[in-house]
Amino acid sequence: MTADTQDLLIETTCELLWERGYVGTSPKAIQRRSGVGQGSMYHHFGGKADLARAAIERSAAQLRARADAAFGAPGGALERVAGYLRRERDALKGCPVGRLTQDPDVMADPLLRAPVEEAFAWLTGRLTGLLAQARDEGALRPGLDPAATATALVAVVQGGYVVARAAGSAEDYGRAIEGALALLGAGTD
Amino acid sequence: MTADTQDLLIETTCELLWERGYVGTSPKAIQRRSGVGQGSMYHHFGGKADLARAAIERSAAQLRARADAAFGAPGGALERVAGYLRRERDALKGCPVGRLTQDPDVMADPLLRAPVEEAFAWLTGRLTGLLAQARDEGALRPGLDPAATATALVAVVQGGYVVARAAGSAEDYGRAIEGALALLGAGTD
Repeated sequence: MTADTQDLLIETTCELLWERGYVGTSPKAIQRRSGVGQGSMYHHFGGKADLARAAIERSAAQLRARADAAFGAPGGALERVAGYLRRERDALKGCPVGRLTQDPDVMADPLLRAPVEEAFAWLTGRLTGLLAQARDEGALRPGLDPAATATALVAVVQGGYVVARAAGSAEDYGRAIEGALALLGAGTD
Repeated sequence: MTADTQDLLIETTCELLWERGYVGTSPKAIQRRSGVGQGSMYHHFGGKADLARAAIERSAAQLRARADAAFGAPGGALERVAGYLRRERDALKGCPVGRLTQDPDVMADPLLRAPVEEAFAWLTGRLTGLLAQARDEGALRPGLDPAATATALVAVVQGGYVVARAAGSAEDYGRAIEGALALLGAGTD
């Protein structure tokens, strides 16, 4: 049961960090939602920061696994980039990793920030590699720098969540993505 | 002194919402930073939500005023769009309005959400108009939809803050913007 309790605590903390951020996630809220008592929680984890670190690492690993699945799909490199950008997302919930960048306490703690920084560096690196491959395949417009283009695309995804939440409509996320794909020359029309 | 106190409370709340979000901004923190006492604060404002509403409206009005200045600069429509995107920003601080979309309490309260939604609708609408004008001036690549392109550009700005904060480097914001401008065919190279 020990591994299960630990897992449940991490999963619950992932959810709460996604919904309410670090400042809005209290140890009491984690205990209430998970049904794990205070004693058991502090048996498994040193405190909120310790548990948050495990939760952020899990969310970052899931982000990588999901992206990896899209990047490894069949097709040319530019199609795989487009597939990643179009992958169905819960646009109004936003990105569980990206939203942590708005959390001053996460950004101020090197241990909490590290998995966030690593996840974005990894994602941008993978997209840069795919765009360089697309260039070699003749699918990318000449003159586009793979690294700058990759950074812009990661920003479109993250900012797509912001515009969708501002409008209260997941359609705005889709519009941002289709706008970016058309700019990239990988749109449907 | 009454107008000054009210103004100071609004300004302080703008700052705290920008730095720590709604959940992380307590009435006590507003009183501490502004130096305004509890009695005086509740004389001017009904409570935290009332004060936050005034602060969010002020931040949204400032966003519009700054964007308007860039949109009204001399030059062709596409140059003005590029000028807006390149406008110097405090990339690591992020957008005082966009960051509120990550605040569940702001999004759940129609009165707090309205100024955020309106600011983004206005911004996207203005950029759509400029991109339509750029198309008429022959400066926009054929086949690009002004509205989808505008939504993608707003997303790049908002997501540019996310990648910059994740990397702890304002340069990543600049790289996202230059990547987007190159995609738009409005880059420097």
